[in-house]
Amino acid sequence: MNDERKTRLLESFGRSKIMQLFGAEVTGMDEGYFEITVPKQDFMARPAGMFNGSTIASLVDVSSGYAGASAKPEDSYFTTVELKVNYLNPAIGEQLVAKAQVIKNGKVLTVVRSDVFAVSAEGKETLAATSLVTLMQLSKKSPDKQID
Amino acid sequence: MNDERKTRLLESFGRSKIMQLFGAEVTGMDEGYFEITVPKQDFMARPAGMFNGSTIASLVDVSSGYAGASAKPEDSYFTTVELKVNYLNPAIGEQLVAKAQVIKNGKVLTVVRSDVFAVSAEGKETLAATSLVTLMQLSKKSPDKQID
Amino acid sequence: MNDERKTRLLESFGRSKIMQLFGAEVTGMDEGYFEITVPKQDFMARPAGMFNGSTIASLVDVSSGYAGASAKPEDSYFTTVELKVNYLNPAIGEQLVAKAQVIKNGKVLTVVRSDVFAVSAEGKETLAATSLVTLMQLSKKSPDKQID
Amino acid sequence: MNDERKTRLLESFGRSKIMQLFGAEVTGMDEGYFEITVPKQDFMARPAGMFNGSTIASLVDVSSGYAGASAKPEDSYFTTVELKVNYLNPAIGEQLVAKAQVIKNGKVLTVVRSDVFAVSAEGKETLAATSLVTLMQLSKKSPDKQID
Repeated sequence: MNDERKTRLLESFGRSKIMQLFGAEVTGMDEGYFEITVPKQDFMARPAGMFNGSTIASLVDVSSGYAGASAKPEDSYFTTVELKVNYLNPAIGEQLVAKAQVIKNGKVLTVVRSDVFAVSAEGKETLAATSLVTLMQLSKKSPDKQID
Repeated sequence: MNDERKTRLLESFGRSKIMQLFGAEVTGMDEGYFEITVPKQDFMARPAGMFNGSTIASLVDVSSGYAGASAKPEDSYFTTVELKVNYLNPAIGEQLVAKAQVIKNGKVLTVVRSDVFAVSAEGKETLAATSLVTLMQLSKKSPDKQID
Repeated sequence: MNDERKTRLLESFGRSKIMQLFGAEVTGMDEGYFEITVPKQDFMARPAGMFNGSTIASLVDVSSGYAGASAKPEDSYFTTVELKVNYLNPAIGEQLVAKAQVIKNGKVLTVVRSDVFAVSAEGKETLAATSLVTLMQLSKKSPDKQID
Repeated sequence: MNDERKTRLLESFGRSKIMQLFGAEVTGMDEGYFEITVPKQDFMARPAGMFNGSTIASLVDVSSGYAGASAKPEDSYFTTVELKVNYLNPAIGEQLVAKAQVIKNGKVLTVVRSDVFAVSAEGKETLAATSLVTLMQLSKKSPDKQID
């Protein structure tokens, strides 16, 4: 994955209002792979303190979209077709990390698995959720509209 | 559904930080049914203007949880086991409405369908997404911890 | 839905080897709707006697494909993109009936919900499973290859 | 995994009528892992020759159930709660192999991923589908009823 491609994805990510709200950072990126880390905020937590299902589903959606985009050589415009999350363990920790990996990079449809981990203050990762996401590539767009 | 039960669910909903962030309102409630309406905000929108998939998935999760709780005679504590959303039409509109209906109210597991509609300024509803959500009842808790 | 269209779908269904194995009958058909009924056979049953999950998933898949085809004015060739089944109640009965309804008839993707009922000897229907299925239309084919 | 446990799972598998119909063989087994191989038969094929979606979904269901059982130290009785399959590539080949791996072995719920490969005459494997399956452990049963 060349640097220009990475820069463009990072710029797109930087413009995302929901990722700004989440205080999200890109902590990994490669062809077909995208990783997002968010620190806990009040609106992300259940009363008992763990991350809620909405926040996890949001990270699944966004990380999968960027992983799909990272698997294409050119800027591409995707929409989420469907999204399936299995919540596996209580998401207890200070941060959430979503690690999204493309498992099928098709012409029309792209399928991504995003695993979401809760990370404790000591850095211990617990697999909170796994998922399968189907994206559809809509069409090629002008450079300033593409990935977002 | 008696008034005391409704009041308790509304109070629980009122305490939800993520629903406060969303500016969400409960616009319908009955035994096994829960409806949430949110006005559009910047962080909910894709660059092209429609609601994003994360916001829709969040409403699916929250509306399903409350629908599940509304189907039980007493306060209950649920966790989302898994969540599946199919995005059907672009969510173009000023508001999102999630209408969650319990389709199986089991002893351990509850299954809910939440349909999410985009509502135009003129009040026209478009089905943006449908879903299936599985909830697990964890155990009965003290009154002030239950539903949230 | 005109009679010629119905006849072609029935002929296609009649050629399906797996539906022959199941002893399946088409018990309802309309634009965007397809209903299949199967009598219980040994290989469909769990040791305790109810229909097994494999048989239910198979009926979901096949009924959804034909419902998708029935929503198109011309013969179309579909592949299943993804399939999600929630098993709701023990499938106790003598027959299974799958009722598949298109909920989104898109240009590229079609989304179908198929509800599967177990039917007792007295004709009582129990909702055994619900589902969401995404189909992709591949391309238009010559008449004898289309729907199958 | 001790030999007695393996023997009991193989015996249970041997009694399965649907696996007999499929001509299925157990080609791998370990704690939390179960692998099934089936040779192609007419009823498993689409007109164009690849394995159909029903057969793949059936293998996902059965392989996941046995993987779940293999993760428990004692005979256990499971029911499938929900099943989600993503079809990734045309299932072209002479055999299908389902490789099911437990990803969460919970007290009540077990979550399994089953990857299904089409195998060519030359032994080349193509990933045809991936899946997520949720199983619920019902209760402990008498030895002759357990796993089936």
